[in-house]
Amino acid sequence: MDKFVYSFNEGSKDMRSLLGGKGANLAEMTKIGLPVPFGFTVTTEACTKYYEEGGQIADSIKDEIYEKLAELENVTGKKFGDLENPLLVSVRSGAVFSMPGMMDTILNLGLNDNTVESLAKLTENDRFAYDSYRRFIQMFGDVVMEIPKTEFDKIFDGVKEKAGAKYDVELTTDNLKEIIVGYKALVKKFMGRDFPQEPAEQLMEAVKAVFRSWNNDRAILYRKLNHIPDSLGTAVNVQSMVFGNMGDTSGTGVAFTRSPVNGENRIFGEFLVNAQGEDVVAGIRTPKPIAEMEESFPEVYKDFTRIADVLEKHYHDMQDMEFTVERNKLYMLQTRSGKRTAAAAVKIAVDMVEEGLIDRETAVMRVDPEQIDQLLHPNFDEAAEKAAQCITKGLPASPGAACGRIYFTAAEAEKAVADGNKAVLVRQETSPEDLAGMVAAEGIMTARGGMTSHAAVVARGMGKCCVAGCSEVIVDEENKVMKVGDLTFGEGDYISLNGTTGSVYAGMIKTVDPEFSGDFGTIMSWADGIRTMKVRTNADNPRDAAQAVAFGAEGIGLCRTEHMFFEEERIPAIRRMIVADNEEERRAALADLLPYQKGDFKGIYEVMEDRPVTIRLLDPPLHEFLPKTEEEIKQLSDISGVSVEKIKKTVTELHEFNPMLGHRGCRLAVTYPEIAEMQTRAIMEAAIEVKAEKGFDIVPEIMIPLVGMKDELKYVKETVVSTAEACKKEKNSDIKYMVGTMVEIPRAALTADEIAEEAEFFSFGTNDLTQMTFGFSRDDTGKLIKEYMDKGILKDDIFQSIDQTGVGKLVKMAADLGRSTRPNIKLGICGEHGGDPRSIDFCQRVGLNYVSCSPFRVPVARIAAAHAAISAKEAK
Amino acid sequence: MDKFVYSFNEGSKDMRSLLGGKGANLAEMTKIGLPVPFGFTVTTEACTKYYEEGGQIADSIKDEIYEKLAELENVTGKKFGDLENPLLVSVRSGAVFSMPGMMDTILNLGLNDNTVESLAKLTENDRFAYDSYRRFIQMFGDVVMEIPKTEFDKIFDGVKEKAGAKYDVELTTDNLKEIIVGYKALVKKFMGRDFPQEPAEQLMEAVKAVFRSWNNDRAILYRKLNHIPDSLGTAVNVQSMVFGNMGDTSGTGVAFTRSPVNGENRIFGEFLVNAQGEDVVAGIRTPKPIAEMEESFPEVYKDFTRIADVLEKHYHDMQDMEFTVERNKLYMLQTRSGKRTAAAAVKIAVDMVEEGLIDRETAVMRVDPEQIDQLLHPNFDEAAEKAAQCITKGLPASPGAACGRIYFTAAEAEKAVADGNKAVLVRQETSPEDLAGMVAAEGIMTARGGMTSHAAVVARGMGKCCVAGCSEVIVDEENKVMKVGDLTFGEGDYISLNGTTGSVYAGMIKTVDPEFSGDFGTIMSWADGIRTMKVRTNADNPRDAAQAVAFGAEGIGLCRTEHMFFEEERIPAIRRMIVADNEEERRAALADLLPYQKGDFKGIYEVMEDRPVTIRLLDPPLHEFLPKTEEEIKQLSDISGVSVEKIKKTVTELHEFNPMLGHRGCRLAVTYPEIAEMQTRAIMEAAIEVKAEKGFDIVPEIMIPLVGMKDELKYVKETVVSTAEACKKEKNSDIKYMVGTMVEIPRAALTADEIAEEAEFFSFGTNDLTQMTFGFSRDDTGKLIKEYMDKGILKDDIFQSIDQTGVGKLVKMAADLGRSTRPNIKLGICGEHGGDPRSIDFCQRVGLNYVSCSPFRVPVARIAAAHAAISAKEAK
Repeated sequence: MDKFVYSFNEGSKDMRSLLGGKGANLAEMTKIGLPVPFGFTVTTEACTKYYEEGGQIADSIKDEIYEKLAELENVTGKKFGDLENPLLVSVRSGAVFSMPGMMDTILNLGLNDNTVESLAKLTENDRFAYDSYRRFIQMFGDVVMEIPKTEFDKIFDGVKEKAGAKYDVELTTDNLKEIIVGYKALVKKFMGRDFPQEPAEQLMEAVKAVFRSWNNDRAILYRKLNHIPDSLGTAVNVQSMVFGNMGDTSGTGVAFTRSPVNGENRIFGEFLVNAQGEDVVAGIRTPKPIAEMEESFPEVYKDFTRIADVLEKHYHDMQDMEFTVERNKLYMLQTRSGKRTAAAAVKIAVDMVEEGLIDRETAVMRVDPEQIDQLLHPNFDEAAEKAAQCITKGLPASPGAACGRIYFTAAEAEKAVADGNKAVLVRQETSPEDLAGMVAAEGIMTARGGMTSHAAVVARGMGKCCVAGCSEVIVDEENKVMKVGDLTFGEGDYISLNGTTGSVYAGMIKTVDPEFSGDFGTIMSWADGIRTMKVRTNADNPRDAAQAVAFGAEGIGLCRTEHMFFEEERIPAIRRMIVADNEEERRAALADLLPYQKGDFKGIYEVMEDRPVTIRLLDPPLHEFLPKTEEEIKQLSDISGVSVEKIKKTVTELHEFNPMLGHRGCRLAVTYPEIAEMQTRAIMEAAIEVKAEKGFDIVPEIMIPLVGMKDELKYVKETVVSTAEACKKEKNSDIKYMVGTMVEIPRAALTADEIAEEAEFFSFGTNDLTQMTFGFSRDDTGKLIKEYMDKGILKDDIFQSIDQTGVGKLVKMAADLGRSTRPNIKLGICGEHGGDPRSIDFCQRVGLNYVSCSPFRVPVARIAAAHAAISAKEAK
Repeated sequence: MDKFVYSFNEGSKDMRSLLGGKGANLAEMTKIGLPVPFGFTVTTEACTKYYEEGGQIADSIKDEIYEKLAELENVTGKKFGDLENPLLVSVRSGAVFSMPGMMDTILNLGLNDNTVESLAKLTENDRFAYDSYRRFIQMFGDVVMEIPKTEFDKIFDGVKEKAGAKYDVELTTDNLKEIIVGYKALVKKFMGRDFPQEPAEQLMEAVKAVFRSWNNDRAILYRKLNHIPDSLGTAVNVQSMVFGNMGDTSGTGVAFTRSPVNGENRIFGEFLVNAQGEDVVAGIRTPKPIAEMEESFPEVYKDFTRIADVLEKHYHDMQDMEFTVERNKLYMLQTRSGKRTAAAAVKIAVDMVEEGLIDRETAVMRVDPEQIDQLLHPNFDEAAEKAAQCITKGLPASPGAACGRIYFTAAEAEKAVADGNKAVLVRQETSPEDLAGMVAAEGIMTARGGMTSHAAVVARGMGKCCVAGCSEVIVDEENKVMKVGDLTFGEGDYISLNGTTGSVYAGMIKTVDPEFSGDFGTIMSWADGIRTMKVRTNADNPRDAAQAVAFGAEGIGLCRTEHMFFEEERIPAIRRMIVADNEEERRAALADLLPYQKGDFKGIYEVMEDRPVTIRLLDPPLHEFLPKTEEEIKQLSDISGVSVEKIKKTVTELHEFNPMLGHRGCRLAVTYPEIAEMQTRAIMEAAIEVKAEKGFDIVPEIMIPLVGMKDELKYVKETVVSTAEACKKEKNSDIKYMVGTMVEIPRAALTADEIAEEAEFFSFGTNDLTQMTFGFSRDDTGKLIKEYMDKGILKDDIFQSIDQTGVGKLVKMAADLGRSTRPNIKLGICGEHGGDPRSIDFCQRVGLNYVSCSPFRVPVARIAAAHAAISAKEAK
């Protein structure tokens, strides 16, 4: 027969899915002989059964509960409703995955009009007893009977006012008794029956209420946000109460076995004498550091440190513990793995390996890749940030902290920085022309655009703090003001951005610089030893490439060539090329660009040395490069000799309704093969020269973007190969090179077997692939995605973490089809997802050879790839 | 041992793939005892072998050729190089699929310095003999020796000039002999050897040259354009020459067994006395109607009509025949199925069934669905069109012919038509606001946009002539002029459009109206009896719906609701809704729209009676409805009470970089459920009322557009269902309705199993699906697609015929996944492809239940669906 209720001495930590996290750990502590108030756990399966049976607890389960209750009475020597020694219990939910504060708890169950008096006598504290009863009725009324809290508040506040009490603690026992009378009348009025006096009835109702709480709105939303299946259900823990508020020999506390802040190996926590957990939370009294417990309770403290040590060694991890001291006796109420900062995570993991507690794989698994990011950027001083005035929240587009004066154009930001100011660039949305201003600024804030908008992508690439999509902010670039609600900020006003949380503050906030401890290097090297996927970076210039190499990048997965064209001295040539009347003029303009491009690539090869470099041919639609203002058009006319009228005509002709789906990517190279020729020449000549000069083993990987058809790739590849071969011949070089393609158009994924006939490698451009697979333009749907997540339609931002069901299906299909044609095809990812741990895990499962991400994500990706490799090994 | 050469008496019409079309039919005619000059065919396999062996004819094949040559000499009693009775042959290519004029032919092979004299003697015509020899050397020199034609022309023109001859016919025998001397010297100079005098050598070289011609540029391009595999190869037909130019008892002609123009059952063709085929082509003499042959050659004519009858009965199809009469003896040189107009195709098919020659399925297969279109629209008078001045060519966006005065705005076109003019609306590109002008105009011409641009789609829907994407034309709407090269046209100038070919003409061209004969109805009803897929229409109003029903539509597959909003009296309400500050104001504006929408749907239900109607909820981004000019904004401000500033802000906020991938489709209904509510209410109330009033069995199919995720559909469906149920309750109705979705986002196809949990039907929106799967915006890539087709990267316009490899893979995947969840799910297609025969064939293979297309494509789709059903049956 199925068993639905377990006494604490029947379970263990391995029964988490049945007993929930809390229940399993209470059982484990009981098992290893630690002092845990006895109790029992009603399983998650009982919860599932409760829902299956339409909200009823089956009689057989009820019988089991009563049986365990009898055992509890036996063990504690207390009895439900007993006047001498009444049993009081707490009833707490305990899900498989921690859902803090999401579900309901009832304390002091077992109190009634009679046992409250017994409790008063036993504790020699009338006020405590009646306050407990008052709280119990209120909690029970709220949680079990679903009577609005405000109704209880009205009664409570009425008595308080009548008594002239300002604080709750000023209420006398008589006041509390009056409140209890009022509460009971309220229950009677609402429920049409008296408040249940029978503890067994109280218990059964409470268990049901905890089951019901699994499906309250908060809990459902929390599960949605945290990817917890709805089907799991919650367990219910029924535990005999202990009291930390029975005078100066009692107390309560919360402690970690090591510092969750910096990982230091000593007990860290807080303690309050003569108090219950609630008092700590209420914030009325200030708890003391745990170390001071040694003075108040030397014996108990000794006991506690011993138990902490036992628990850590037992669980092989830093523990977060709750305990209560009742009349000099220590009781453990909870233990679980403690949350920690990135710095602490790294130090604890490394220390524990050195202490022989865990192995390296476990150590690496203990470091959350997302957290690593914290270690790479300056952050706000915590207290200073708390004290600052948060004016709005946007998307946490690129982590770190930034303070500076507001400037509304890139040029002004640049100038201000040149004048010695710190600048924050505030824009409606950035464009490639803002690049210099973004480099100069401490941080970037935009009113529009999502997590993969231009501002966000470029900022992450530079490791620069960015808050994007602040939709409440109105940026008036013309008049140089931004408005948020009633607040107005002008040029030169200070703001501060937290790119890790998305918060924007008025004024300046103190920042602290990151420290790379030796432990960081240790854990990263362990991760490198474990992972099977390579980690490359997306970098367009030697500076970013060098940064990425310093962070451990093993190559460049995506070198975009378009940003190079926006530099001041080059943009005229590219514009001349675009407005050229014929191929000859176009070639002349391209010839002017060639030395620049070649120089770019030489710089990158020199930094990357022997590491592979994937260079993507020109991708954006040409109109992105065209002049916008009359003045710029006039300038272009002067240098190109093309009439203003004709330039305007070109601008009109090149306008596109949906540039994302327009004349870009390899389509440019089909129409203007001479562009691909010039770029190939720059790539090859640079490689041949650097190879000759420095002796590096350079094998350029030439990547053709936006391919959707095999014949399209073939067409452009012919240009690339014939140019590359010509370069080799001219320079008498036998250099090797590869030609591959982005897989970013759904059709490319669907026909990857055909495309692999021409492509030597695939690089998944999951940004565009996501845009087209979903039909979501990332520039236009930032707000919509937020709405979808709020409404539970989307669980994640699809531009942050790859949609494994839809987009992932295409990626997997393409990987499989690609390998079916070319078994050794090199597969990588260079979309923003390449730096996202869950996406990296997906890449491992699909069998990609490498991930590529922005320089500041490289350490994150190294850890995440190690996690993915371990998970894959375990899944086998 | 393999056999590579077949005498004409060894083959048959069923050996087409081996002998080519021409060879198989020559053999067939020989087999059934018709007078065919004897000869043999070198097979397509020999051609393949020739390429496999690097451009060599294997010795064994050479031996076979010589063997068959000996047989030919035997049969004809003539001999290669014989001075008494020399054998002369023609060498012609003959591929499996007809490739007219694509490959090379050599006549009079066997002539040399000696046999030319014999020929002169035999024909008693020196001039004829030397002219034949001259032509042979020239043809052989060009085709076999690849000597530039211009070199021969120089010699020929030199002699002509010297002789003072204006026309070739003025050249004397001596002149021709002089030319021959010159030609032979040219050959010697170019080839370093004499012109081959040995007929056997001539033959082998000629065969090789025909094989080579399979891979000349013209042939390769033709195959690409006509979807003919490169691997097939061509056969070579070697046939003894007969001469139609041996005096007045000889002649040559071309004839059809029935009229290819109107299908009339009598011989139709042309005939020339004392002439060879070449003379007909050269156009020097005007051929006579075939009937007159009866006078010149009564016996031969009788023979010929008998043979024509035999051939038609033998092939069960109208035949296109070539023949030559040599000295009163009739020789058949070719027979094949004749090309015909749509009208002829229909009449011949119906007549032949009545004559018992073919069955109904064959009859339906004989009608090319694409041709049917010709029967539904007015067309230009053929001669008048030939005489007109073609100024440019655009895309044949919507068939038919239109003449009228140019107007550059919809309002001006409307006004001009109201004033009694015929108008052609000329626009850069149309938008929904141009609708009234498009309705008023005879035809529409646009400078931008592809086959599925707004102009094209709407025009096809209305059956209105449209030429889109005239990229050479500069339309200056502001100054009311359009320029093409040096030509300028102003408002009021006449132009004519041929929407079937894309040609645009200056001035007016006479048009002829279509005639629907009884045969048309007959063949359509046979098609309906055969097909298994239903044919629905895309119609947004009662007028189009009625037109479609008249054309045989069995339901509406797509009723777009957005066009309804653009009407003058409604647009203010929709604008008020968009600029509304809150849900309440939005609801008030929607309440004003409800009666209009309800009226729209009632009108449609009344026309459609019991037929199913699928209505799609609002799809386009809201900014499409917003005012553009200052004046319009002011007006909106006045009626809505919203400030001009605020309206402008809304316009800016709603601007999208890529509206195609923006806030549209079901995403609108997620953000503003009240829109979906209003539309559902209009759909349901209209259905309930019309059902009550007229007694039709109406089951509205409510379609939710642009779904990419199951949860998105679920979210919107909840709004739809709760509203529909409320309407039923209010009206006390038990009406049934269905809720389904468009499958037009790649992700919807990829996750169709999940989506089918919520959707009762799928309608494939292959326009958007193609856009997103390819990453091609149809508004921006018209020119690019043309370039891709020119460069052979794309074989078809992907917006005309579904891309079966990529997009089709998604459609098939979605159909299979959808049925895996919901076996009876109703599947249809409502993209433009729903009217394309090849796409319809694809739909049949994927197992769709219906196709839906614009009203004027309905007859096309009915025939195409019948073809698809027959093909599917045959494939089994």
